[in-house]
Amino acid sequence: MSENLLHSRVETIRRLARRGAVRPLANILQKTRAEDVAATMPHLAPAEQRFVFQHIEDDETAAELLARVGETDLANLVRDLPVERLVELLDAMEVDDETDVIALLPEDIRERVMALLQRDDREQVEELLAWPEDSAGGIMQPAAFRLNEDATCREAIQALQESGDVEQVFYLYVENEQGQLVGVVSLRNLLTRPPNTPLHEVMVPDVISVPPHLDQEEVSRIVSRYDFLAVPVVDEHRRLLGIVTVDDVIDVIKEEAVEDMMLMVGVHQDDPSDQPGGVLKSARQRLTWLLITLVGGVLVAELAKLWERDIGAFPLLAGFLPVVIGMGGNVGSQAATITVRGIALGHLEPRDILRVVWREVRVGLLLGLGYGLLLAVYCWLRFDRLFFGLGVGAAILAAMGAAAVTGSIIPLALQRARIDPAVVTVPFVTTLMDLVGVLIYFSVTTALIALTF
Amino acid sequence: MSENLLHSRVETIRRLARRGAVRPLANILQKTRAEDVAATMPHLAPAEQRFVFQHIEDDETAAELLARVGETDLANLVRDLPVERLVELLDAMEVDDETDVIALLPEDIRERVMALLQRDDREQVEELLAWPEDSAGGIMQPAAFRLNEDATCREAIQALQESGDVEQVFYLYVENEQGQLVGVVSLRNLLTRPPNTPLHEVMVPDVISVPPHLDQEEVSRIVSRYDFLAVPVVDEHRRLLGIVTVDDVIDVIKEEAVEDMMLMVGVHQDDPSDQPGGVLKSARQRLTWLLITLVGGVLVAELAKLWERDIGAFPLLAGFLPVVIGMGGNVGSQAATITVRGIALGHLEPRDILRVVWREVRVGLLLGLGYGLLLAVYCWLRFDRLFFGLGVGAAILAAMGAAAVTGSIIPLALQRARIDPAVVTVPFVTTLMDLVGVLIYFSVTTALIALTF
Repeated sequence: MSENLLHSRVETIRRLARRGAVRPLANILQKTRAEDVAATMPHLAPAEQRFVFQHIEDDETAAELLARVGETDLANLVRDLPVERLVELLDAMEVDDETDVIALLPEDIRERVMALLQRDDREQVEELLAWPEDSAGGIMQPAAFRLNEDATCREAIQALQESGDVEQVFYLYVENEQGQLVGVVSLRNLLTRPPNTPLHEVMVPDVISVPPHLDQEEVSRIVSRYDFLAVPVVDEHRRLLGIVTVDDVIDVIKEEAVEDMMLMVGVHQDDPSDQPGGVLKSARQRLTWLLITLVGGVLVAELAKLWERDIGAFPLLAGFLPVVIGMGGNVGSQAATITVRGIALGHLEPRDILRVVWREVRVGLLLGLGYGLLLAVYCWLRFDRLFFGLGVGAAILAAMGAAAVTGSIIPLALQRARIDPAVVTVPFVTTLMDLVGVLIYFSVTTALIALTF
Repeated sequence: MSENLLHSRVETIRRLARRGAVRPLANILQKTRAEDVAATMPHLAPAEQRFVFQHIEDDETAAELLARVGETDLANLVRDLPVERLVELLDAMEVDDETDVIALLPEDIRERVMALLQRDDREQVEELLAWPEDSAGGIMQPAAFRLNEDATCREAIQALQESGDVEQVFYLYVENEQGQLVGVVSLRNLLTRPPNTPLHEVMVPDVISVPPHLDQEEVSRIVSRYDFLAVPVVDEHRRLLGIVTVDDVIDVIKEEAVEDMMLMVGVHQDDPSDQPGGVLKSARQRLTWLLITLVGGVLVAELAKLWERDIGAFPLLAGFLPVVIGMGGNVGSQAATITVRGIALGHLEPRDILRVVWREVRVGLLLGLGYGLLLAVYCWLRFDRLFFGLGVGAAILAAMGAAAVTGSIIPLALQRARIDPAVVTVPFVTTLMDLVGVLIYFSVTTALIALTF
């Protein structure tokens, strides 16, 4: 379904929900895929969301909806739902989705739900909840299709036909007598071998697996590097705990991309300003970087004060400070972003520091030379002040060169110190470049202006 | 394999390549997965890359390597390779990978390769090359496992066993007499039904498919929304052209995330500064946004000139301009990023404009109030100038409020005008806020200072 189709569906559902047209709405919901109903949720008001949810007749669809919405929408949907009904819907989910939903539930509801779960289901959920939510254990599903290595292909196919509880089968995992993971078989290979062949002859040994505590970002890197549909999670004795499937990996990659982008401008990824009382929370989360900008700004003012007399004598000096520090901030942010990305993609290491800095410095100086000349000529023609123009031009050149060094060196230095280079945000780099820029600007311009007197 | 293991492998390969230790290197390469060899490439110097490539004995691995490296590394690897050998390696690839590699080859080599390809292979490659590289057609693989709807499950399993050319099978696609796509069957469903059941009784009808010209980002959204392993690409008569598989979708999602992040700071996604002659190209690509910053900066200087006399009389005025426009730029960038992300994730539409702007304005004003007060108190205590302090504080409050409005309104307005909101980059927002900020700053502060005289 294209985005346009989605939008017209949103419109229809919305209109019917608003009119309270129960029968037509239920009919449409019946005919619509669960994923498409879920996609309409962010566009509906809370009351509309609940109205739609109440009129979904198919349990699978209702369960899918709960599994797909975020924390706020989930709290809204389950607000008026009897806990017994919620447990029914949770039963219809795969246990990894079930765990995720339970983890997002408001605490009072969560406790009542846990008490009502069947014992083995509750134990599985509790085990999954024990792993950090951004680890392999936190995103795995415990149900995996597994057999002993001595089973034959025929037995495997039979087992596959009878395994109702494993919803989607990606690979068949092969275990030895000790329950250790020793191999993997694709469904297709199961079919292309004589039925009596034992699995240990069909399987690919030397399976790539991940430990349960591995960070989800690393898990996604492995799945994507080897083009896997799923990767097994094993404990320290190589016993299979579960699998992380490619659809969860896609969610991880998207999540991390949003997180990185938000981090870059100093915003928390789950900016809560859309929630009730969220404005305050949101302001609190953005406080830190703005405080750094503020402190930096005050320092800039204090530094500028050192040249107070020059500014008083020649006020034009003040007007060109913003462009010099602005250009420096831009070049610094660009160098930092390129370096942070290079590190994240695994292309750059601390040892590459000289090469990267040298490359960014050349780009920065080249651009600084061009724009410095341009600005020098502008100042000269506009104000008839050659030396002031040269001063501004030279300051821009120096600021851009310094910005390129700073922006590329800091992320690599942070990585060497084992700090996530992604903390080098745009606000941080621009603030730093403001300070460096103001020093460069006033030193260079006043020195050159002095020549004319 | 964890990142640490990868790094130690890179080290080993590098050391052997440098020493020219042919035999040990070939042995290690023999034992290393193709994907892992490919992952070492970005860390090797061009000569080392060629040395490693020459000593890969397994054709599959060599082919995989070519399919995984970028344009620059590819040109380097094939530099000394006889064209006949290159064609051999291309033959070992799936046709979508083959096409991608051919598209990236230097033009003279590409032509010689095309001339040497077998006729039907060449035709397939030419057909794929005809689609835009970021469309469904451009990323699909034409080989899909397909059968007529009257075939039985038994026949399908037989066909699957004999289909040597379709490397990885995700789904079985079902066609009618006219060759139109009418259904889809999972491999598992093939096994769970009596062998004589015709496919049209097993298949899921109403298949979600995409047209070949659909943008790859939209394709990735569909695959991710429905948790597909592959999505069929069909022409206007619903004839199956090929499939886009989940591993290619992961590449698209990663690519788009990098692209968005780079765009945000005004850098082209394939920043070429690492390539020979790349510094110049890289500088050229970053030119645009810096030019906007420069023009904005000159306008700021021209506007500041309007208050030249005030600055001359009270030079301290100049020192606090950077912090006011800096804070405005930060708040504006944050509001813009949150809004652009909300649109990209499908959470925000132009109709939400008032809600979003109101939310951001409250966050902006709240922060502005806090920081404005802080700064006012600072200026008052430090310089004993109450009204100047109040002016700076009020200017920050106004600038941050204006920034919140501007940052959130522009992406939504662009979306309504059907322009990609992602063009609202950080350099653009900060430049705009520089201009707004300088006007607000000087108007407010001079007005308040005037009260004291």
